[in-house]
Amino acid sequence: MSQSAVPSFPRHLLDFSDWNRGQVESILETAQMMQEVLARPVKKVPALTGFTVATVFFEPSTRTRLSFELAARRMSADVLSFATATSSTTKGETYRDTLRTLEQMGIDAYVIRVDAAGVCHQAYGWLHKPVINAGDGWRAHPTQALLDAFTLRERLGSLEGKKIAIVGDILHSRVARSNAELLTMLGAQVVACGPATLLPGSLPGATLTTSLKEALLEADAVMALRLQKERMDKGLLPSLPEYIAAYQITQERLAWARPLAPLLHPGPMNRDVELEGTLADSPQSLVERQVANGQAIRMAVLYHLLVGKRS
Amino acid sequence: MSQSAVPSFPRHLLDFSDWNRGQVESILETAQMMQEVLARPVKKVPALTGFTVATVFFEPSTRTRLSFELAARRMSADVLSFATATSSTTKGETYRDTLRTLEQMGIDAYVIRVDAAGVCHQAYGWLHKPVINAGDGWRAHPTQALLDAFTLRERLGSLEGKKIAIVGDILHSRVARSNAELLTMLGAQVVACGPATLLPGSLPGATLTTSLKEALLEADAVMALRLQKERMDKGLLPSLPEYIAAYQITQERLAWARPLAPLLHPGPMNRDVELEGTLADSPQSLVERQVANGQAIRMAVLYHLLVGKRS
Amino acid sequence: MSQSAVPSFPRHLLDFSDWNRGQVESILETAQMMQEVLARPVKKVPALTGFTVATVFFEPSTRTRLSFELAARRMSADVLSFATATSSTTKGETYRDTLRTLEQMGIDAYVIRVDAAGVCHQAYGWLHKPVINAGDGWRAHPTQALLDAFTLRERLGSLEGKKIAIVGDILHSRVARSNAELLTMLGAQVVACGPATLLPGSLPGATLTTSLKEALLEADAVMALRLQKERMDKGLLPSLPEYIAAYQITQERLAWARPLAPLLHPGPMNRDVELEGTLADSPQSLVERQVANGQAIRMAVLYHLLVGKRS
Repeated sequence: MSQSAVPSFPRHLLDFSDWNRGQVESILETAQMMQEVLARPVKKVPALTGFTVATVFFEPSTRTRLSFELAARRMSADVLSFATATSSTTKGETYRDTLRTLEQMGIDAYVIRVDAAGVCHQAYGWLHKPVINAGDGWRAHPTQALLDAFTLRERLGSLEGKKIAIVGDILHSRVARSNAELLTMLGAQVVACGPATLLPGSLPGATLTTSLKEALLEADAVMALRLQKERMDKGLLPSLPEYIAAYQITQERLAWARPLAPLLHPGPMNRDVELEGTLADSPQSLVERQVANGQAIRMAVLYHLLVGKRS
Repeated sequence: MSQSAVPSFPRHLLDFSDWNRGQVESILETAQMMQEVLARPVKKVPALTGFTVATVFFEPSTRTRLSFELAARRMSADVLSFATATSSTTKGETYRDTLRTLEQMGIDAYVIRVDAAGVCHQAYGWLHKPVINAGDGWRAHPTQALLDAFTLRERLGSLEGKKIAIVGDILHSRVARSNAELLTMLGAQVVACGPATLLPGSLPGATLTTSLKEALLEADAVMALRLQKERMDKGLLPSLPEYIAAYQITQERLAWARPLAPLLHPGPMNRDVELEGTLADSPQSLVERQVANGQAIRMAVLYHLLVGKRS
Repeated sequence: MSQSAVPSFPRHLLDFSDWNRGQVESILETAQMMQEVLARPVKKVPALTGFTVATVFFEPSTRTRLSFELAARRMSADVLSFATATSSTTKGETYRDTLRTLEQMGIDAYVIRVDAAGVCHQAYGWLHKPVINAGDGWRAHPTQALLDAFTLRERLGSLEGKKIAIVGDILHSRVARSNAELLTMLGAQVVACGPATLLPGSLPGATLTTSLKEALLEADAVMALRLQKERMDKGLLPSLPEYIAAYQITQERLAWARPLAPLLHPGPMNRDVELEGTLADSPQSLVERQVANGQAIRMAVLYHLLVGKRS
């Protein structure tokens, strides 16, 4: 995407390549205000009355879809929910026709999840209204990274110089990619850790290691990723017992990190796989807080892209 | 559930064990007011503006789900619809994580249907907001019983001393259990009738019989239950012809009851199985009235649990 | 349907047999006003506040369903979405019970799609509120014809004496039937064209031909129909290469029509089957405009049937 085609405040949220730190800080500040709305008994504001937000999910994901839809409705937007189970081989042309059809119905913003990386970027050219990437293949899941950053700052304050360990199947993780991109932009030092077969050649902004101890040592926070059992069944992952033996986050291993270092997970968790089941319910776990903050972040993103001023 | 954990006006509607007659009467009175709302051209009140009601259906049921969702929207609540087709073997832990995730999104009340009896009761401990049981396994379906009681009182007046016959697969029926509990609380005498293999050892509050004639004789009202064909296929029920021969409610057999005794069915009906098809459309049938009253009852329950005063 | 049972302004939109030209013109005029609403930043009016519109889809169709639901919500109606995948052998009794159940929930208008032709007409007798046919079998799809007529008039002005070619599987097309009915009512001359095996014995109002050249020659507009690949797999259609060779609308063949004759397609398109893929994106294509106008038409139809005056 050429620089000239992008306004200084982006119209889309595809990944963070078009976003600078000031713009990200604006979203995080607005999310703070949205949290105050969410603390009220009546969690509803008229900010997006008359707007229609479409969630377009070419890949199933109930949680993320519901989180966006609820965020939109809490700002009084109408929601059009389009979900389809198309195979990953569906031709780009079909995605285009589907999205152009929705455009004709007068949609004001699109929240798109698709298994084929790149479709969200193409959608940028097909559509005249804001596109929010809700997860595309292995590439990016920017609202997840925003809510993770927001949650980490709530607990740690500034992320400047903080060491954040991300553990699991880094290779196939859009969450790892978006977090590496965003957390380093906010000054953190990201260490990504997993078995050699699940590490990419490089992860921009992050250090890679196969040693869990190295990753967790003195870490200010630890993020476990969801293991896709489907991938394991295809022989792409090590066996479950091997993974657990070497990479499960346990109480004992978490002690390598700084005292009370918070533990994050994007959910849904496989308890006793990526992390010791009881850890998920410990005071160090921010897993539920991440979900709550997801509401505030998605409200902030929708607000900025739909009615926010663009500099 | 210890007495001390339960406020004197319950926060949940799981079954009627925590509810006393006065509390039930309050719901029925409010439902009367809701019926007046439903008789208006504009069937909408602002009572629940800004509240979000989640319907969480781990077992499919379009009718019940739509009835609750419409009831919530008619009071201006937002609705989050979560449906999943999980097997009955799903671990309790997963139900918990799913519900806790929704809780973090700021849900104000939960309408839960689940095939595993007991999950609704566990949810009581997991969640901080009202839980309404929309049917759990064989155990309870309290809003069905409330709408049945409401419908019966519309036609019969007080249920004090009235004989109500419930006919069909009593053993597997949450509708029978909840009705036996509620109708006897309201003073009725309940007789539950079915083939010996489909009767439980006991049904609190009710008399059991295998004789249809005994059950229907002088009955003030008759309720036929839906026969689950799936269960019959597994050999758990008698054959269809055998069932029909002995237990189908026909015009002829209905004459054993009092003149014009109303006929109820929770729906959806298998016409010409549980009852003679034409009977469903006769003036004695309250089947459609039950559906209409379901709206008023569900509005009343949501209203009481969300904004009603607790004594 | 006897004449006496039908008010002079129909309560239903099943097909156009009960509608006269003046009534159709009223819908088209209202749609013009709805387009002005849709051009505003806030595309929402309170016209149907407190009404509940049910979309009842016994046959899947995401586009049509979403178009109606969005139209209803833009007029502030509540929407109840009932979709089920029933086989074409489902008994009429079941349709009736389902619809009567919804009626009891207080639905104000029904948008029904069903694969069994005739169910919509039967629904007329079962329900007391307006029924809109959203496609029934091969018979009728009146809102599609209305949006096509609206789109054609936007481009061509009056349809009086205009030649409109409809090309494809005429035999199985409810779109062709409804368009033939409506466009001839508005003064157009309709020529329906396809392979002999896909032409009906007659199409009221239209001329039939197997010659694409004859159909397209001097045509003022061309409408390509969607080819159902499912039907082709059953041997009911000619092979794809044969169809394309003889009937695909190409740039070259479109030149037989009047200069700049618009090209329509009800969608979703099979690009490079019914029409040359690039034609769909040419200035002659009104495919996207049809979708946009579908919103205005459906808002107009809902408005007239729910709150419009009946003469």
